[in-house]
Amino acid sequence: MQNDEFKIIEVKDRILEDNDSVANAVRSRMREKGVFLVNLMASPGAGKTTLLARTIRELKDIYRIGVMEADVDSDVDARTVAEAGAKVIQLHTGGSCHMDAEMTRKGLEEMGVDDLDLVFLENIGNLVCPAEFDVGADKRVMLLSVPEGDDKPLKYPLMFQVSDVLLVTKTDTAPVFAFDFERLRANVDRQRARTNQASGRLPILPLSARTGEGFDAWIDWLRTEVDAR
Amino acid sequence: MQNDEFKIIEVKDRILEDNDSVANAVRSRMREKGVFLVNLMASPGAGKTTLLARTIRELKDIYRIGVMEADVDSDVDARTVAEAGAKVIQLHTGGSCHMDAEMTRKGLEEMGVDDLDLVFLENIGNLVCPAEFDVGADKRVMLLSVPEGDDKPLKYPLMFQVSDVLLVTKTDTAPVFAFDFERLRANVDRQRARTNQASGRLPILPLSARTGEGFDAWIDWLRTEVDAR
Repeated sequence: MQNDEFKIIEVKDRILEDNDSVANAVRSRMREKGVFLVNLMASPGAGKTTLLARTIRELKDIYRIGVMEADVDSDVDARTVAEAGAKVIQLHTGGSCHMDAEMTRKGLEEMGVDDLDLVFLENIGNLVCPAEFDVGADKRVMLLSVPEGDDKPLKYPLMFQVSDVLLVTKTDTAPVFAFDFERLRANVDRQRARTNQASGRLPILPLSARTGEGFDAWIDWLRTEVDAR
Repeated sequence: MQNDEFKIIEVKDRILEDNDSVANAVRSRMREKGVFLVNLMASPGAGKTTLLARTIRELKDIYRIGVMEADVDSDVDARTVAEAGAKVIQLHTGGSCHMDAEMTRKGLEEMGVDDLDLVFLENIGNLVCPAEFDVGADKRVMLLSVPEGDDKPLKYPLMFQVSDVLLVTKTDTAPVFAFDFERLRANVDRQRARTNQASGRLPILPLSARTGEGFDAWIDWLRTEVDAR
């Protein structure tokens, strides 16, 4: 299936005992090609697409950017990021609530990465299952929106344990929500202390993709990581 | 495991070919006992617990109410609803991203329903997997919060197809979000027209559990359903 702007590919969830070995192969292959792969994860409606669209607009003159939009259905987000100036492919997961390494490998192959420096996988909106699957990304970036609340690390521990950076989005709406950044910090630290999967203290970057507040810190973090690839 | 206020039970996801037959058995059993069971589903942070706490406070002199709090981890929500005046049991799903019928059956057995009229299952915060499992409830109640956006039916179709009522929560925050109720209505109707699983036109009830705006319509809907049990 294809339209003018981007391909739409059906990817199916398979029970793979060797997800981690496929993930490692994806990571090696992308490093050989000089492509930095980001796995972007969050709840439905946390602002992944809005973040991506602004990130693409700010960085498209510096990096060649690709986006794999994973969705159970529809292609609304793919249109938005294509308009922002990225190479885009839409992945339909056929009901699966997460992406795994093989689905990611197939998506990268279908999109083609030879003309790219930076690729984002916009994972399915879900705080549970995507955290369980290494897709072969260099970094896992998690979004938590202010409206969701500062208690979420208590209820979805694995996502906060495996992520490499946490972007707290929609900070422009903070006046109408009771969101406490110190409590979030304490909840995150407490969950990461419970596991050996966490890679040290989680950087927490508050931002608004609508107003641009705090966005520079995210762009700096990302550029540092991509340039070290 | 137990504390002063409520039990905490570990329930595990099992691959059950006969989920639907267990669901039907749960439904029959609850009807025999005169218990109305609601399956409450939403994204993380959509306001399930705040809705429940206010609902319990408004109805606890009319119905004897029980709540099964399903979480991957933690018991913060169980404390909140216990304080509101319901009988509460905490279910830990051991990593599973949804409740199925057997997990629900076990939860009801552990909680005990002989002293109850109305039981809520607060499902895992997830718009994908919980929609796939009939847990044996009389009604499926879905929440969508204003901050999540009016496009969600396009991306999580099944949830909007199988639900019996849609509560749009956090309407008090509408001034800071661009949420269009007419677009939501159109997106919902379009998805339900695509399937034969939908039970007619989905009632959409906007409300704020914080201010109480619109809450009467939800209470009326619920009382009508419970009294017809």
